[in-house]
Amino acid sequence: MIYLDNSATTFPKPLPVREAMQQALREFGANPGRSGYGMSMRTTQALYDCRRTAADFFGASGPECVVFQPSCTQSLNLVLKGSLRSGDHVVVSDLEHNAVMRPLTVMADKGISYTVAETFPGDNDATLNSFRKAMQPNTKLVVCTHASNVFGIRLPVERIAALTHQYGAKICVDCAQTAGLVPISVTAGGIDYLCVAGHKGLYGPMGTGLLILRNPQDRLATLTEGGTGTQSRSLLQPDDPPERYEPGTQNVPGILGLRAGIEFVKRKGQQNIFRSEMKKIEYLYDRLAAISQVELYTMPPREPFFVPVLSFNIKGETSENVGEYLAQNGIAVRCGLHCAPLAHEKMGTEEGTVRVSPSVFTRREEIDLLLSRIRGYRLGKNGR
Amino acid sequence: MIYLDNSATTFPKPLPVREAMQQALREFGANPGRSGYGMSMRTTQALYDCRRTAADFFGASGPECVVFQPSCTQSLNLVLKGSLRSGDHVVVSDLEHNAVMRPLTVMADKGISYTVAETFPGDNDATLNSFRKAMQPNTKLVVCTHASNVFGIRLPVERIAALTHQYGAKICVDCAQTAGLVPISVTAGGIDYLCVAGHKGLYGPMGTGLLILRNPQDRLATLTEGGTGTQSRSLLQPDDPPERYEPGTQNVPGILGLRAGIEFVKRKGQQNIFRSEMKKIEYLYDRLAAISQVELYTMPPREPFFVPVLSFNIKGETSENVGEYLAQNGIAVRCGLHCAPLAHEKMGTEEGTVRVSPSVFTRREEIDLLLSRIRGYRLGKNGR
Repeated sequence: MIYLDNSATTFPKPLPVREAMQQALREFGANPGRSGYGMSMRTTQALYDCRRTAADFFGASGPECVVFQPSCTQSLNLVLKGSLRSGDHVVVSDLEHNAVMRPLTVMADKGISYTVAETFPGDNDATLNSFRKAMQPNTKLVVCTHASNVFGIRLPVERIAALTHQYGAKICVDCAQTAGLVPISVTAGGIDYLCVAGHKGLYGPMGTGLLILRNPQDRLATLTEGGTGTQSRSLLQPDDPPERYEPGTQNVPGILGLRAGIEFVKRKGQQNIFRSEMKKIEYLYDRLAAISQVELYTMPPREPFFVPVLSFNIKGETSENVGEYLAQNGIAVRCGLHCAPLAHEKMGTEEGTVRVSPSVFTRREEIDLLLSRIRGYRLGKNGR
Repeated sequence: MIYLDNSATTFPKPLPVREAMQQALREFGANPGRSGYGMSMRTTQALYDCRRTAADFFGASGPECVVFQPSCTQSLNLVLKGSLRSGDHVVVSDLEHNAVMRPLTVMADKGISYTVAETFPGDNDATLNSFRKAMQPNTKLVVCTHASNVFGIRLPVERIAALTHQYGAKICVDCAQTAGLVPISVTAGGIDYLCVAGHKGLYGPMGTGLLILRNPQDRLATLTEGGTGTQSRSLLQPDDPPERYEPGTQNVPGILGLRAGIEFVKRKGQQNIFRSEMKKIEYLYDRLAAISQVELYTMPPREPFFVPVLSFNIKGETSENVGEYLAQNGIAVRCGLHCAPLAHEKMGTEEGTVRVSPSVFTRREEIDLLLSRIRGYRLGKNGR
């Protein structure tokens, strides 16, 4: 199989990630932070090492700024629901995922409103201006994806962060698609809340995510409470991060796999991975552009305005039919709306797109085979 | 190491569990429910198989009643926060874990009150009477542990469920300690919400939990929303379980490990595991009772009033000192409050206890070695 659905989750996972998970099951099998015997303390230490690795990787001021979550979606929900109250206003980009839009839709019932700021691929000044215009006196939070999970459009989040702070608000950046690909520092970039998927560009297992806090003094209301192994006498959740946001038993094998994934990315080099994937996406884009029956939606994807995710369609055909045809030919891509209806509305692709997303393991020949299959597509014949 | 902290998490995990997780990483590595290519569909099917296995195991009416959660704590939070509104009243037992009490403490600010019903180990009629007396006209939910995570005291949850329904309320049972040990059926037992830890008696990996719904028509308010791969066009979370409660990417390796764990328990037989562990706890209790410096807190643990979890102290010594002494001698137990301050208040053990919890892998000789170490404990000498 040629796997080009790495924006959904990267596959395969690097061998050290799989080995770390096996090691976790064998050697770090006690509940961390709960007991004083050897294996429990070693497990606690192993989680701490992962926090330290992630803090370093994302420019956080310390390991206590790294909160383990089961997914980027959970991190986003925690930030949204933990920081907003009735009467607050939020600004979001027009590329946000349902992990942002669905919580905001529910929160509308609680008196929390939002404005969608238009983004302009290739024109960061215009994008900035949109965000500026969307700000209101009661704007408490800006939520902004680092890059569209459908079109690969990258947003100038550091500039948006600076603008946000001028207005006295905080910024939450959704790095689901970019963590491990595009360097980002919560401290240097002024990102108050960084939401990270562990199983995409960081090559950890599915079921892992991170919330990175810029300021460890920051206190979000908790979304869930429970046992933390600390301050057990109290019926109140502990006040300090990360325990405050981590009730219940942690996903130890997942977290140790994630740590191995981050180490893998560090060894390969984020820039190297990014450039290698971008080259393949640029190569793909340029050749797709020469196929008359292919429809593309963005300008040619180039740094610094894009990350390596590309959407297209075959004219007159549904994305699902194209996806099925490719699947029958051993090529895995994702079709449909990719949980981001807002982005499709913006681009006029409400019926969905075919999305191609490489990983560090993707080879040029695999892109060539994809291209040859697309060239061989016969309208109405290859679909269902 | 002699591992007797299985109530925190079982260790070791059975080989098939570890193998299932490796297989998940190799063969079920695509994001489930998102795409139409082979590996994504196979992964979706594998999760479905786990739902079917769990539905069968817990007497649910169908796989759609099985909701994957990252922990039992998350399941409890979802039920509490998804079913209660301002003005509602809750009845809980006096043995509840902080995973119940801390959410209820937060929810008090939202006008949700609770009453603690006293339980009487060995006298289920008296326990039932307590719950009856605690019911109020506005009682919407009864939350009740199946068994204390500290003292092993088992509650007659099926009888409490029948009582709860007489009062027009619903019941949520916390099976963190009993799933895989004590058979329970949501349908036959009338348990509206069953909250399950995946990594204890079910022998799955840490980071897994389940919420089993009795009635698939039941609708809880969601705690988190996001992408589900279904109805992506809508900014509303899908209405139907299980997707409604499962936004974001699922912990596929964890869930497939959990499925292998449930299959392991089925092969061994819940009753066999239970009896084998109970024998060891009865054996331990009887011998501890003969050591003058040991303090015990319950009547002799016998069916049907107990599950195999035992707490004790050495008179005049802190549980932490005893735990450290045992750890130095290669025996892993848990000390302190076990995240359940309510239970300690009830039993007068506010300073904590030493807890011993076996698994299917625990051998009689290990209990003997523990006993010999306890007999050899010298007050003030072995502690810190």
